[in-house]
Amino acid sequence: MKITVAQLNYHIGNFEGNTAKMLDAVAKAKEDNADIICFSELATCGYPPRDFLEFDDFIRLGEESIARLAKAADGIAIVVGSVSRNPVVEGKDLHNSAYFLEDGKVKYVQHKTLLPTYDIFDEYRYFEPASDWGIVEYKGKKIALTVCEDIWNIGNENPLYKICPLDEMIKYEPDFILNVSASPFDHNHAEDRINIVKANCNRYKIPMVYVNHVGAQTEIIFDGGSLIASGDGFIHEELPFFEECIKTFDLDDIQKTTKDNINPKEKIALIHDAIIVGIKDYFGKLGFTKAMLGLSGGIDSAVTLALAARALGPENVHSLLMPSQYSSDHSVNDAVALAENLGSPYDIIPIKGIYDAVMEQMSPIFGDRPFNVTEENIQARSRGLLNMALSNKFGNILLNTSNKSEMAVGYGTLYGDLCGGLSVIADVYKTDVFRLAEYINKDKEIIPVNTITKPPSAELRPNQKDSDSLPDYDILDEILYQYIELTKDPQDIIAMGYDEALVKRILKMVNRNEFKRYQTAPVLRVSSKAFGMGRRMPIVAKYLS
Amino acid sequence: MKITVAQLNYHIGNFEGNTAKMLDAVAKAKEDNADIICFSELATCGYPPRDFLEFDDFIRLGEESIARLAKAADGIAIVVGSVSRNPVVEGKDLHNSAYFLEDGKVKYVQHKTLLPTYDIFDEYRYFEPASDWGIVEYKGKKIALTVCEDIWNIGNENPLYKICPLDEMIKYEPDFILNVSASPFDHNHAEDRINIVKANCNRYKIPMVYVNHVGAQTEIIFDGGSLIASGDGFIHEELPFFEECIKTFDLDDIQKTTKDNINPKEKIALIHDAIIVGIKDYFGKLGFTKAMLGLSGGIDSAVTLALAARALGPENVHSLLMPSQYSSDHSVNDAVALAENLGSPYDIIPIKGIYDAVMEQMSPIFGDRPFNVTEENIQARSRGLLNMALSNKFGNILLNTSNKSEMAVGYGTLYGDLCGGLSVIADVYKTDVFRLAEYINKDKEIIPVNTITKPPSAELRPNQKDSDSLPDYDILDEILYQYIELTKDPQDIIAMGYDEALVKRILKMVNRNEFKRYQTAPVLRVSSKAFGMGRRMPIVAKYLS
Repeated sequence: MKITVAQLNYHIGNFEGNTAKMLDAVAKAKEDNADIICFSELATCGYPPRDFLEFDDFIRLGEESIARLAKAADGIAIVVGSVSRNPVVEGKDLHNSAYFLEDGKVKYVQHKTLLPTYDIFDEYRYFEPASDWGIVEYKGKKIALTVCEDIWNIGNENPLYKICPLDEMIKYEPDFILNVSASPFDHNHAEDRINIVKANCNRYKIPMVYVNHVGAQTEIIFDGGSLIASGDGFIHEELPFFEECIKTFDLDDIQKTTKDNINPKEKIALIHDAIIVGIKDYFGKLGFTKAMLGLSGGIDSAVTLALAARALGPENVHSLLMPSQYSSDHSVNDAVALAENLGSPYDIIPIKGIYDAVMEQMSPIFGDRPFNVTEENIQARSRGLLNMALSNKFGNILLNTSNKSEMAVGYGTLYGDLCGGLSVIADVYKTDVFRLAEYINKDKEIIPVNTITKPPSAELRPNQKDSDSLPDYDILDEILYQYIELTKDPQDIIAMGYDEALVKRILKMVNRNEFKRYQTAPVLRVSSKAFGMGRRMPIVAKYLS
Repeated sequence: MKITVAQLNYHIGNFEGNTAKMLDAVAKAKEDNADIICFSELATCGYPPRDFLEFDDFIRLGEESIARLAKAADGIAIVVGSVSRNPVVEGKDLHNSAYFLEDGKVKYVQHKTLLPTYDIFDEYRYFEPASDWGIVEYKGKKIALTVCEDIWNIGNENPLYKICPLDEMIKYEPDFILNVSASPFDHNHAEDRINIVKANCNRYKIPMVYVNHVGAQTEIIFDGGSLIASGDGFIHEELPFFEECIKTFDLDDIQKTTKDNINPKEKIALIHDAIIVGIKDYFGKLGFTKAMLGLSGGIDSAVTLALAARALGPENVHSLLMPSQYSSDHSVNDAVALAENLGSPYDIIPIKGIYDAVMEQMSPIFGDRPFNVTEENIQARSRGLLNMALSNKFGNILLNTSNKSEMAVGYGTLYGDLCGGLSVIADVYKTDVFRLAEYINKDKEIIPVNTITKPPSAELRPNQKDSDSLPDYDILDEILYQYIELTKDPQDIIAMGYDEALVKRILKMVNRNEFKRYQTAPVLRVSSKAFGMGRRMPIVAKYLS
């Protein structure tokens, strides 16, 4: 039996485009003489559709897509994830389902059982879980259809769930498992995914074809990496990361696999590639081609520009250099050098005129109050204003260049440097931003070495350095990681050997600055816990604050 | 049997403050010779605690609060909502529970069964539902303890759920029902709540005491309105709206009720009062006393100022009037008249200097491109910059003055008029903003009549009017309401008689402007569907866009 795996990049709500793309893949699978083609979870509408699921029209469009795909299921079977309606009054109105299409019709529908409702996932908001399980018979084979999370509770060992769907299906003695997934990237997740697929194959002694999404949906990035595994638990093939792929496999060949065939993975390279897809799809799916950013000469905007230039083409990323009286000479030089290394357009616009105009208007009201964070913010917001003016006039999208460390502690100005339509590196801690810069420079110097080696500074007052108000980034980042990614308690972090006052000060900064993160752009998610939809905190609260 | 109802305003994560407040109420109940005092859902930690629930330390602090309250339970029983740990490995780690405290100990714990996971609610993200149900015996009475949503599936008629907890508990023949709730305000919800309490009493023929939260938690406003109902289904008393209340009732008196005793409710008055609590608690719980806003002479900022002045005191709300060359004379006059009517401080700062400084810097780059939305946005952002400068220098919080109609269609400038820490009226459609203005003026003219009667205008280009680019607000608001609150499909709205092209244009504007709403301040929620945590839409998508 020949199975075509279609690892595709969908567009949320674009039923027409998604269906056309799938029909093309079906045609290609027919050329390969495939018996089955398998797409991924909620492929008709894209993942995650979020509250669009509350519109009947949206559900109906998904049903139309299924009808169109069913018509193409002649001489080939199609497995595809889509929404189905719960016929029972009780419970949520919808199911998240895997459809088996054959002979122009829907032959079988298996609903998803385990509905992730944590981190970025809200599936129980919309879907009723499956309460019965079967298999499909096709060309003499019995097939277990599963949806994503359904393979993640092997033998009921995942504490989140109480049912193991494959333990139910295995009673019917299936010959192999198909899994339609929407499993987002984070820099550790591919390994988990390989382990879970292998563990399922080892438990049930049958092969599995696991089909993932690829491409970005606002903040969530899907890496692909679809897996084909033998009944002995060997990975026959891991599809490429961050690109579409349609490939046909023979079940007999899969079963002959005797060793894992897995792509090497390196954290910084994965983050680099993920961000590039994140930028590319944010722009592409919104119908934009051009970006811009404020280029300070510091490492964050340098890395952002380099990544954006790779995603969109250097000629499509316009930089504004906006020096103030506190900018050092090297800042402008370093920024110019980077733009010229990349061949990216740039303009230099000093902010003094705007800053002076604001201060002239405000000084009667400010009276003799001393220079403080207000004046620092006026500088940052003058830059925000200039950036947005350029963005509006030329129809570019402004990129936000903040890193995760500063987003965490609120070291940034709302409506100033926090402006932008997309936060490119706000899920990358500062220490990893340095590693990204070195990775970008691995073949030749693109980001000037001085940008990488000089001490980080916001340059908003004379001789300012980040280290004036923040601890060293290696310490800060480790404490933030323990708190944000691992949800460790303050006492646990202190017990690791960190200074008690420092830990408390940092956690207080994180919690008190929730209001800033609430108002900033979506953050490309590359870690297991990014700011945004996966981390939901009250603004008004008194906890560790 | 005497039952004290404690309808209190909690502070999320402030275990110390919440526990102290509850201990004070216990002391008062003892003075009233009460047998039981009943607090509301998750009263120890405040509602909704959101992802703080992922921290073990946060759970432990709740357990400490329960231990302290248990000590006070001598000669009185205490019923209080708090988190409990799920002792079973399978399923979510936590329960949302009602504790019964007596004789210094936890006597009984009943977990919540029906976990709302829709709109603003994410309970299944954190909690495992109850799987068994009992009652508490106390002083010869049998008591059914329920948590909020558990009374909302009478006879299993709510399609969202499959279990009716009281149908299980009633087997033990309870004498009355206690319900600890956290039921947020919207301008229709009090009626639903009264109906559900009456329906439960009618079904089970026993009285119910229903204890709600009061006060605002960032965007969510709790109105209180706790209910005491007889076994015949009559409302013995409805506690006041929007204020704390501790009151003791005798069960025999409750049972003698022969008619409903319900407060009158009027939509605009409720919205008015809700917003005032929303502002008051946002500031109070964050430790701020002073607000500011940009006052344009238009109706939105006028209503926002009047509400803020009532919430914080007129002397604590500072207005900036920032006329441009496109501002009409009446705008400044109307704004000044309002500030003076209220006795609120204001300053007038023209934006011309800043606008000119920006244009001088940008004109070489803009070349001969014509005046367009860019220049309109520069004006709005110059005002944003001035507002934020004042806010930073004086430690005020800037209020956002956008209404729901313009937030919906994206008629506003990010980092300009969309700046601010709290959106005061962004869940109030423009047509209702006019009604709010009239309500504010009901005893005397506070908002100048000219502000109410003149045609709405952003005044960002010569002779601009909202009606140049938007349909009449009565039509716009009705279409928006059908789409946003009622999640009607475009074809259904068109079938109501609205112009097809207009409906499609409006829904496209709503969907395309999701990116702006993503970056704006939390919105005080007064309707059944507000922008913010209760409405979760993809930014990058192609649906009705």
